[in-house]
Amino acid sequence: MTENLVFTLVRPQMGENIGAAARAMLNFGLDRMRVVDPRDGWPNPKAVAMASGAAGAVLDRAGLFADVPAAIGDCDFVFATTARSRELTKPVYTPETAVAEARARIAAGQRVGVLFGPERTGLENDDVSRANAIITVPVNPDFPSLNLAQAVLLLGYEMKRQELGALPVDPGLAGADPATRIEIEKLGDHFEEKLETAGFFFPPDKGPSMKLNLRNLWSRMPFTRADVQTLHGMLRQITRSQR
Amino acid sequence: MTENLVFTLVRPQMGENIGAAARAMLNFGLDRMRVVDPRDGWPNPKAVAMASGAAGAVLDRAGLFADVPAAIGDCDFVFATTARSRELTKPVYTPETAVAEARARIAAGQRVGVLFGPERTGLENDDVSRANAIITVPVNPDFPSLNLAQAVLLLGYEMKRQELGALPVDPGLAGADPATRIEIEKLGDHFEEKLETAGFFFPPDKGPSMKLNLRNLWSRMPFTRADVQTLHGMLRQITRSQR
Repeated sequence: MTENLVFTLVRPQMGENIGAAARAMLNFGLDRMRVVDPRDGWPNPKAVAMASGAAGAVLDRAGLFADVPAAIGDCDFVFATTARSRELTKPVYTPETAVAEARARIAAGQRVGVLFGPERTGLENDDVSRANAIITVPVNPDFPSLNLAQAVLLLGYEMKRQELGALPVDPGLAGADPATRIEIEKLGDHFEEKLETAGFFFPPDKGPSMKLNLRNLWSRMPFTRADVQTLHGMLRQITRSQR
Repeated sequence: MTENLVFTLVRPQMGENIGAAARAMLNFGLDRMRVVDPRDGWPNPKAVAMASGAAGAVLDRAGLFADVPAAIGDCDFVFATTARSRELTKPVYTPETAVAEARARIAAGQRVGVLFGPERTGLENDDVSRANAIITVPVNPDFPSLNLAQAVLLLGYEMKRQELGALPVDPGLAGADPATRIEIEKLGDHFEEKLETAGFFFPPDKGPSMKLNLRNLWSRMPFTRADVQTLHGMLRQITRSQR
């Protein structure tokens, strides 16, 4: 799917930022970059040094274009990323809605482009006028300081997030079985027995509610079988050492 | 709400990265930072220089702690951000599910901490063992190169994204009225009249379907009133100049 999502850096200035953008793309598995009229020529050794390794291949394959119309000529739909409000009448998407739109178009066989402006000045109105729509990241209006690679990173993250869908929380038990209910029950029995001997359930009329609360405590803990064995062992050793 | 979300940098190394993390937080309106045992002491002039301006205030107010237990002592729930799988049994969240969990807990009056590790090595098992759960960003397994400020940025972005909810696309018509249907109808009439005169609807038996398609074309365009006036003016001027 990602070969039809093309990130285009328009008149980028610092090679380091171009390299950082390539890294940010590859972090989320995106690798189609285009570059329009980079300030310091192309290829850019500082971009390559910053990208390093696998992200360098993103730069090697990046298309170089003289202007925006040439760079987006084969795209079916183009977004311009810009933080500033413009006098241009154009739909404004969040990263979330933009990625949803892009994914739907790509699934229908279209090619979608995203324009990112030069570091200091951002995209010109002339660039934005050629896009179908605008993407504005909902940054703090009192501190909107996203740099080029960060804007690329957030779009890449949104693509991956929507691609994965609503992943459930992984209980993190790989290689560790959760304890069964009978094991929890027996752990409760063991504690109750040792605590009974130790005179913990006092005064006697409070005993039943204290036991109920303890059963409840064990039951809501996400213990593994190993955890339960550890607790049995601790309890045995403590009571043994006190004899 | 954000005063109960505390981002804790554990043993950060480069001042520049601490400053960049403060900027990334403030980009999404977060301002509660804590710092554990920073390599180059505290306050850190390079961090302040990098943060600059408003993000400098995040550093000024950041709490300095000797170790992780002290830094998270007043938190009700703590996430550890780590890319690597650990031998520790612990639930693993995506940024999306982690932020949903954090928002629910904060809404219930809890304080939630997020631990970020040192730049090169990430969090130690000893740090992770003190967290309730892990956050792993779903990066490309072949190129997982997120830096400290980028990890902070993605969590901040998720907070803002979920806070805003599913924002609709802004049609971008601020200060520009959309054309009414009667204006679109009259635009269609104007074109039809001028094209009729020009002999465009030929052969005559194809005329009705050509007119239908043109009406459909105008109707699906998101024209503003100003767009419609522009088109009327263009059409008048072209036909006038050709007399």
